[in-house]
Amino acid sequence: MTIGIFKCGNIGASPVFELLLDELAEREDIKVRTVTTGSKMGVDDVEEALPKLLAFNPNLVILISPNPAIPGPAKARETTLQSGVPSVVVSDSVAKRLKEELEKQGLGYMILMGDPLIGARREFLDPVEMAIFNSNVIKVLATVGVLRILHQEIDRLIAILKEGLPLTLPRLIVDTDTIRDKLDFSNPYAKAKAMAAYELTKKVAEINTRACFIEKDREKYIPLVACAHEIAQLAAKLAEDAREIEKYSDSLARKPHSKKGTPLTKTKLTQSPTSDEETYRNWLKALQP
Amino acid sequence: MTIGIFKCGNIGASPVFELLLDELAEREDIKVRTVTTGSKMGVDDVEEALPKLLAFNPNLVILISPNPAIPGPAKARETTLQSGVPSVVVSDSVAKRLKEELEKQGLGYMILMGDPLIGARREFLDPVEMAIFNSNVIKVLATVGVLRILHQEIDRLIAILKEGLPLTLPRLIVDTDTIRDKLDFSNPYAKAKAMAAYELTKKVAEINTRACFIEKDREKYIPLVACAHEIAQLAAKLAEDAREIEKYSDSLARKPHSKKGTPLTKTKLTQSPTSDEETYRNWLKALQP
Amino acid sequence: MTIGIFKCGNIGASPVFELLLDELAEREDIKVRTVTTGSKMGVDDVEEALPKLLAFNPNLVILISPNPAIPGPAKARETTLQSGVPSVVVSDSVAKRLKEELEKQGLGYMILMGDPLIGARREFLDPVEMAIFNSNVIKVLATVGVLRILHQEIDRLIAILKEGLPLTLPRLIVDTDTIRDKLDFSNPYAKAKAMAAYELTKKVAEINTRACFIEKDREKYIPLVACAHEIAQLAAKLAEDAREIEKYSDSLARKPHSKKGTPLTKTKLTQSPTSDEETYRNWLKALQP
Amino acid sequence: MTIGIFKCGNIGASPVFELLLDELAEREDIKVRTVTTGSKMGVDDVEEALPKLLAFNPNLVILISPNPAIPGPAKARETTLQSGVPSVVVSDSVAKRLKEELEKQGLGYMILMGDPLIGARREFLDPVEMAIFNSNVIKVLATVGVLRILHQEIDRLIAILKEGLPLTLPRLIVDTDTIRDKLDFSNPYAKAKAMAAYELTKKVAEINTRACFIEKDREKYIPLVACAHEIAQLAAKLAEDAREIEKYSDSLARKPHSKKGTPLTKTKLTQSPTSDEETYRNWLKALQP
Amino acid sequence: MTIGIFKCGNIGASPVFELLLDELAEREDIKVRTVTTGSKMGVDDVEEALPKLLAFNPNLVILISPNPAIPGPAKARETTLQSGVPSVVVSDSVAKRLKEELEKQGLGYMILMGDPLIGARREFLDPVEMAIFNSNVIKVLATVGVLRILHQEIDRLIAILKEGLPLTLPRLIVDTDTIRDKLDFSNPYAKAKAMAAYELTKKVAEINTRACFIEKDREKYIPLVACAHEIAQLAAKLAEDAREIEKYSDSLARKPHSKKGTPLTKTKLTQSPTSDEETYRNWLKALQP
Amino acid sequence: MTIGIFKCGNIGASPVFELLLDELAEREDIKVRTVTTGSKMGVDDVEEALPKLLAFNPNLVILISPNPAIPGPAKARETTLQSGVPSVVVSDSVAKRLKEELEKQGLGYMILMGDPLIGARREFLDPVEMAIFNSNVIKVLATVGVLRILHQEIDRLIAILKEGLPLTLPRLIVDTDTIRDKLDFSNPYAKAKAMAAYELTKKVAEINTRACFIEKDREKYIPLVACAHEIAQLAAKLAEDAREIEKYSDSLARKPHSKKGTPLTKTKLTQSPTSDEETYRNWLKALQP
Repeated sequence: MTIGIFKCGNIGASPVFELLLDELAEREDIKVRTVTTGSKMGVDDVEEALPKLLAFNPNLVILISPNPAIPGPAKARETTLQSGVPSVVVSDSVAKRLKEELEKQGLGYMILMGDPLIGARREFLDPVEMAIFNSNVIKVLATVGVLRILHQEIDRLIAILKEGLPLTLPRLIVDTDTIRDKLDFSNPYAKAKAMAAYELTKKVAEINTRACFIEKDREKYIPLVACAHEIAQLAAKLAEDAREIEKYSDSLARKPHSKKGTPLTKTKLTQSPTSDEETYRNWLKALQP
Repeated sequence: MTIGIFKCGNIGASPVFELLLDELAEREDIKVRTVTTGSKMGVDDVEEALPKLLAFNPNLVILISPNPAIPGPAKARETTLQSGVPSVVVSDSVAKRLKEELEKQGLGYMILMGDPLIGARREFLDPVEMAIFNSNVIKVLATVGVLRILHQEIDRLIAILKEGLPLTLPRLIVDTDTIRDKLDFSNPYAKAKAMAAYELTKKVAEINTRACFIEKDREKYIPLVACAHEIAQLAAKLAEDAREIEKYSDSLARKPHSKKGTPLTKTKLTQSPTSDEETYRNWLKALQP
Repeated sequence: MTIGIFKCGNIGASPVFELLLDELAEREDIKVRTVTTGSKMGVDDVEEALPKLLAFNPNLVILISPNPAIPGPAKARETTLQSGVPSVVVSDSVAKRLKEELEKQGLGYMILMGDPLIGARREFLDPVEMAIFNSNVIKVLATVGVLRILHQEIDRLIAILKEGLPLTLPRLIVDTDTIRDKLDFSNPYAKAKAMAAYELTKKVAEINTRACFIEKDREKYIPLVACAHEIAQLAAKLAEDAREIEKYSDSLARKPHSKKGTPLTKTKLTQSPTSDEETYRNWLKALQP
Repeated sequence: MTIGIFKCGNIGASPVFELLLDELAEREDIKVRTVTTGSKMGVDDVEEALPKLLAFNPNLVILISPNPAIPGPAKARETTLQSGVPSVVVSDSVAKRLKEELEKQGLGYMILMGDPLIGARREFLDPVEMAIFNSNVIKVLATVGVLRILHQEIDRLIAILKEGLPLTLPRLIVDTDTIRDKLDFSNPYAKAKAMAAYELTKKVAEINTRACFIEKDREKYIPLVACAHEIAQLAAKLAEDAREIEKYSDSLARKPHSKKGTPLTKTKLTQSPTSDEETYRNWLKALQP
Repeated sequence: MTIGIFKCGNIGASPVFELLLDELAEREDIKVRTVTTGSKMGVDDVEEALPKLLAFNPNLVILISPNPAIPGPAKARETTLQSGVPSVVVSDSVAKRLKEELEKQGLGYMILMGDPLIGARREFLDPVEMAIFNSNVIKVLATVGVLRILHQEIDRLIAILKEGLPLTLPRLIVDTDTIRDKLDFSNPYAKAKAMAAYELTKKVAEINTRACFIEKDREKYIPLVACAHEIAQLAAKLAEDAREIEKYSDSLARKPHSKKGTPLTKTKLTQSPTSDEETYRNWLKALQP
Repeated sequence: MTIGIFKCGNIGASPVFELLLDELAEREDIKVRTVTTGSKMGVDDVEEALPKLLAFNPNLVILISPNPAIPGPAKARETTLQSGVPSVVVSDSVAKRLKEELEKQGLGYMILMGDPLIGARREFLDPVEMAIFNSNVIKVLATVGVLRILHQEIDRLIAILKEGLPLTLPRLIVDTDTIRDKLDFSNPYAKAKAMAAYELTKKVAEINTRACFIEKDREKYIPLVACAHEIAQLAAKLAEDAREIEKYSDSLARKPHSKKGTPLTKTKLTQSPTSDEETYRNWLKALQP
């Protein structure tokens, strides 16, 4: 089975997305193929690049971009719909207002409320600052459980496709409540810190949006983007602190993929992972996530 | 001009690589296209995926993978050579022993001695741990100047191609000495900390190599991968500390791309970037980096 | 001259407010008198307590409370207006929608957008948690310059009253922009961190409001208040980090009161403060702050 | 029932004192009224302000000030004694030598050995530094259990008054031993850190006393007050670390007031507080605390 | 019984070595005598100083020095061999290549792979930097269990000598594996951090060796020694973090000596130590450590 | 010239003392010889061991011990006095009351007020805890300048002896004032933090003295020694923070010895040290330090 990933522009969940599905590079049940247009999101970019992905004949397509309402990503949605391959949009908080349109189009979606816009102002952002920002956001998304939700949803779809069952595409808004309900942390204060870290990335999004689109004066937007990236750094630190607490009680959950692609689970560090039957059964019987 | 990036397996520099060239998504002189095989590195993967990249008719190809000696990446090198497009291999320390072969093949290379192997043991590595590890490595590579070296080398090639001058492909082993010589830090202790952070990622590589390929007993390799990832986390923290020092004296260098793709530079946060003429001139006159 | 302060309920700026005006207890030009109703904000509380404050015959009254729109604080505004003493309302972000009403009433106001509601849920809040929360908020408000703005505005009014000039009461919404413009920090990254700290207290307000007034289910509101207080703790740490940077360059501004109540200023730690003539002149000539 | 609080000058326990008794503003059994003289402690200040407090007809009076031996606070003691209302003096370590006099006068007392004098030197102290210092001291007093002791003693008196039993006023010297015996921490290292934090505030008191009253030369006292406030900052950090440890094992005790004012208790974050019968019974049967 | 310790030059384990055997100064079964040649390691130094140690008629001699292959320490080995007293060499990683020679000579050895060379370059090292470096190394060696291994091996020899049993001298290479197997930590992540700290001191050794013996140019070696000492500082911090985790679960093992010199053991802080019979029995029955 | 060091029992300055005089092991003008009695301080220990030191015919003797008033160290003083070699006592705060006696005896002294007693209780102290405590104390003494004062005083005596001038032995009480006056820090807040760190080690001494000699009940002394060692750990961290600040402005003073033993000095990390003529001249002309 082939999972096709199309990245058009970047969100925090993009850079490591394809690696989430096969973190040990030993999975025998799927192939993952990605095509990207770099940071650009134009209609031309999409028209040139997306067919290359579809040429892999994917069984499932993931479309990742910021703001899926603008023409480039809209074109990408349209093109995959025409191809008939089941598709899931992964995007940031801007996508929330597109929720109904996506449902009408028959696309799945996973909208990450705390995957923040970067501080894209030339006085502040250079390749190094960009990479550090993404590093911080990746750490938050990983630690607070957002990336877990993402890969498990895709894993669920793969499982259903493998079993030949009818597919229900995800319709997820991943907000702080989701973290509260889904995060595998045993300590409630660790969970509170994780929620706090995610709230901070939402705050980053809010400030950067203002700095990038509203403030026109560099005396105003430079301090704002700097301020937002300080919060991103802090959010990563806080997420790390939360995870440390789970280490201190040796209760950190790990959920690797087996070679067959089925979900495994473990907590004690020195133990071996065992098959996560419950999760797998839930995947197969769930009609709507 | 089109820059084609082929990722086959993952190293720390991979996830944000294509974004480095156009961090503001405003560059008008280049298009960036990426095709990846996910975490897999088989010959089949390469044979299926690389042609999709070459179909973009790139003017320059970057091949990123760990260990370029194994069959999959070797096949990728061979295929791009056949295509006649100038190509640069970006890889980790394992690639060092391939140096002469790469030179003979006429490939450029940028070998990152401190881009470490991940702790790929199923008892330890799951998608979340994988993402966090990459987050830490990205922060180190960005902060200590490795990502700066990478994008500037590609930028140099682009500049030469645009000017129609003869191309000298990079032959770079990026070790701690390189950081000492190229990092734009003004404080010598900040530089020492950055060098230390890079030495730590080299140590991570060393420990994970032992844990993944030498130790067969889980009582032995589990503590080792856990130990290596603790060092990765610490390296990211140390790199961050180093960068903070530069903030404290408001001497943090920022080098964004202009819309035309030419290099800009600035230090004081509240200033605007100006054209980095010197760097540009050096690019054009250098015969060998 | 007597400054009367009436506290009815608590905001983060309340606990140390009266001390701001005479931090060394050596000021000869004013007396400060405070009456409070503890944490209660009922109409009865106000009716009983406020006359005790007015009995001091204050030349200026400061009314501090959260949410000045509810009956108790509204009664307090009405009563002081009847007394004819010039009065200034100090309150939190909820007060922003009362702006026009306050202006019509002829009251001055200083509305602190980042003075957050506490996580007032009995499963979480006890006297110790309450005190720690206030400790964190006080540190943020002090460090990022909000308390400086508060005392300087009152000092300005005192100066005008002493000179017998016509009084223009403050109309201030103290938001992150205010910090950017008024904070005496020399390092721009320190300022960015201070702005970030203030944004975090705004986030605390947002989460606690939801946890206290919207969520009805304890499984939902307990994690939220815990999350909000984690952010408050982090905001205090970030504010402290910002101030440390100013220490590192020995550029921390200090602005004590002289015995006569006039503003002094200094930066280098080992120097003595000197008269801040410029600030004083600006106070006297400003018609509208 | 009315609790009257008179603050004359400031100690670390003052700013949030009245809030401790009714942290949720929902208590139906008491009213709290506070009158303060700001930072001033003169006889005139007391003579003018204290009658305003007594005019509330309090059932219990708390007199909070530094150094209760000097004329202003002495006058306050005398005046409340004349009023016949049961009264408790809350003060700092200087008050220890007044112990016998207070007992003779029939006043209760709670003397906080680790509530330190501030670094009241004009070259160093301004309103912002003052507020930050108080923030740090409040965090220590809260975290290490001093504020718990304070509010429970007052709660005990209220309970006895409500039951119409004979009142035994507190005679407490709150030193590090008290913390060892009364702090609700389950981890012995957390307790050791809390004791250490309290010892540090005692050290702050010692250094500031020397800096404020003994050293006459600014070259000498400026470094000393700066040194003392660094220790205060560190003490707050250490207290926070201690509390974090209790969070890590989800054993943090919380003791809110019920609406009726009776003591509640809980530890696990997600649980609801239950009635603390044992504490309440002990309050009623204790003849001498 | 007299334990004679000869220090010739310094390694990280040297400064507190003799104190390890009798940390409470209450042990009645042994006397410890040390003679050192300061930082010097010449043959003359040894020839003058070692006889003074042998004049104490020690029952056991410990020879501590870096690099025991060079003439001074070689002379020390030769001289103690001639004296007939059982002797153990304690040294750093350079000694590993001397392993067979030491065995042939009939000397015991404990070779500490993570006891790093100092950054002995006059542009960098002064007495203060030297002391801080040793402080950091001592903290790592203590925390990760290396000093435990050292004193228990000597304690074992003392026990055997006291029982009149045949002596088997230690032949230990103390590397990261040793820590994994011998460290008394209950938390596996704490152990991973401890292993990481020890790996960092090995890295320090590697960098300082290059900086001291290979790089000739001060532009090259100054950054390297600074970098190595930054890592040493970080290693100490990491070791401390590891130990803190054990505190958080109150599982920190303590193994004091009884007055009779027998091993005691305890974990819970508030408990008393009890006799460690198992360790003692193992000592007596072990033929080869 | 031979410098003889006799250590009898341990203080924080002992473990690295002899290394301070020749940190690079390249000094050609002196030999350093040390004899110690381990942690024991009995008269017998001294009578057996001190003659071995005097047998080196030292030109100067340093006697280091805690509490020099008790019989063992007193015997050591007496014996060195009889030998006629100029001698300097280095000791902890307990020695302050012996000041006059030392002066009468014609001994020099350097009394370190912040070199604290260890928490010598068997329930708490084991070899590992002992080593960590010493690590922390060494870091404080080094960083705040105490070790600088120690080695420069000995260096001064050596210089005078080499020049054949009359010797004035040091009479130093090294308290926080000394640090304020002698520490080579350029940033006043760094200096304040260093002073604070030293005040903390004084606090450690105070608490451990109580825990070791006054409290008899293990429920009382165990928390106290744990508390004291937490403060020691914090003091080391604070000292490190202070030194970091000097790194941030690249103003960290380094004062290595030249091969000839003369004092060198430097600040900028990348510079070479130069001869510290001024210090040397001061040494020769000072009659009394």
